[in-house]
Amino acid sequence: MHVVIPLYPGFTALDAVGPYTVLAFAPGWTVTFAAPAPGPVLDDRESLTLTAAAALADVPRPDVVLVPGGPGTAQAMGDPVLLDWIRAAHEHAAWTASVCSGSLILGAAGVLAGRRATSHWGVVDGLAGFGAEPARERVVVDGTVVTAAGVSAGIDMALELLARTSGADTARAVQLVVEYDPDPPFDSGNAERADAALREAALGLI
Amino acid sequence: MHVVIPLYPGFTALDAVGPYTVLAFAPGWTVTFAAPAPGPVLDDRESLTLTAAAALADVPRPDVVLVPGGPGTAQAMGDPVLLDWIRAAHEHAAWTASVCSGSLILGAAGVLAGRRATSHWGVVDGLAGFGAEPARERVVVDGTVVTAAGVSAGIDMALELLARTSGADTARAVQLVVEYDPDPPFDSGNAERADAALREAALGLI
Repeated sequence: MHVVIPLYPGFTALDAVGPYTVLAFAPGWTVTFAAPAPGPVLDDRESLTLTAAAALADVPRPDVVLVPGGPGTAQAMGDPVLLDWIRAAHEHAAWTASVCSGSLILGAAGVLAGRRATSHWGVVDGLAGFGAEPARERVVVDGTVVTAAGVSAGIDMALELLARTSGADTARAVQLVVEYDPDPPFDSGNAERADAALREAALGLI
Repeated sequence: MHVVIPLYPGFTALDAVGPYTVLAFAPGWTVTFAAPAPGPVLDDRESLTLTAAAALADVPRPDVVLVPGGPGTAQAMGDPVLLDWIRAAHEHAAWTASVCSGSLILGAAGVLAGRRATSHWGVVDGLAGFGAEPARERVVVDGTVVTAAGVSAGIDMALELLARTSGADTARAVQLVVEYDPDPPFDSGNAERADAALREAALGLI
């Protein structure tokens, strides 16, 4: 399976690298980072630079499209090169996926109309503007479109994609090699269980 | 707080980018990726390139040293430029941290002698060779040295570091902004609970 992860300025690094690491460990899976033009792409914190190894035009037919989110989403949603590429790649892809606000980019490309989809809790309601049904779930699968909640949810989504595509045994082995037995020090990662002050503090960090 | 993450060829991307994303979202924290010389550094899957923005020599006094692991560890453990930098930076750092087999590099630099420390489950016993006491735990804090288990454990470790340094409120807000409410599709991330066949399959992926 060939995965293409399109990058754009202001993406959130873990959105892309969480699922990248999970998928790239799986036998028979390869991942290419791409952008309108190859070269360095700066993240939302302006302190991490990932290289796009390919131009989007050079990788038109991936098996999996995986779009990260981040504060740069707002601008990326207006980039016709990115949106046209997503629209065309989606037609042939086995899976079209997003992490965090990456689903807004899928929405802008017209991929989410009539589908259930999720996103970062701070923007998930905005999916309705693209004809999608917003779902406050961690991973949502609707046909060939798979969307994940904010940032770290891409790891769970990638394991789900692996299980559905390469089987549960492969997903379990990858989960073990990346020792994904999560044990966060707090139970504060879910906006539904957070109070208003914590939600405000969290959104203030973006 | 200024965090420096040293990169070397063959690092595992999520080891570095998990804690990076957590720490870079925290107010007052900045992160610099560094290497013996600035420039692109290729990961263990040979399909992700992160840029080292600085030379190690240019960032000698970080508040936090954070060393990722990966198959490239074996070679990095013999790089005197990296080891000398770690040794010197550790003397002044508030925290010296590692993810996955990055603790073997800390061990080779002499930082772990007499300390409890953890690592990826596949290599954790090797820490004894550096005078450390291997601990099969997800995050181990011993004095100013914090080590994490394999790959994804760096996310939990970074939240722990944040809580101890900037307070629980900050860590909770960051956990919420990255929506870290993990829900893996399987319970297969812990080697102690995996059977021999699964452990073998997982190690075969490296």
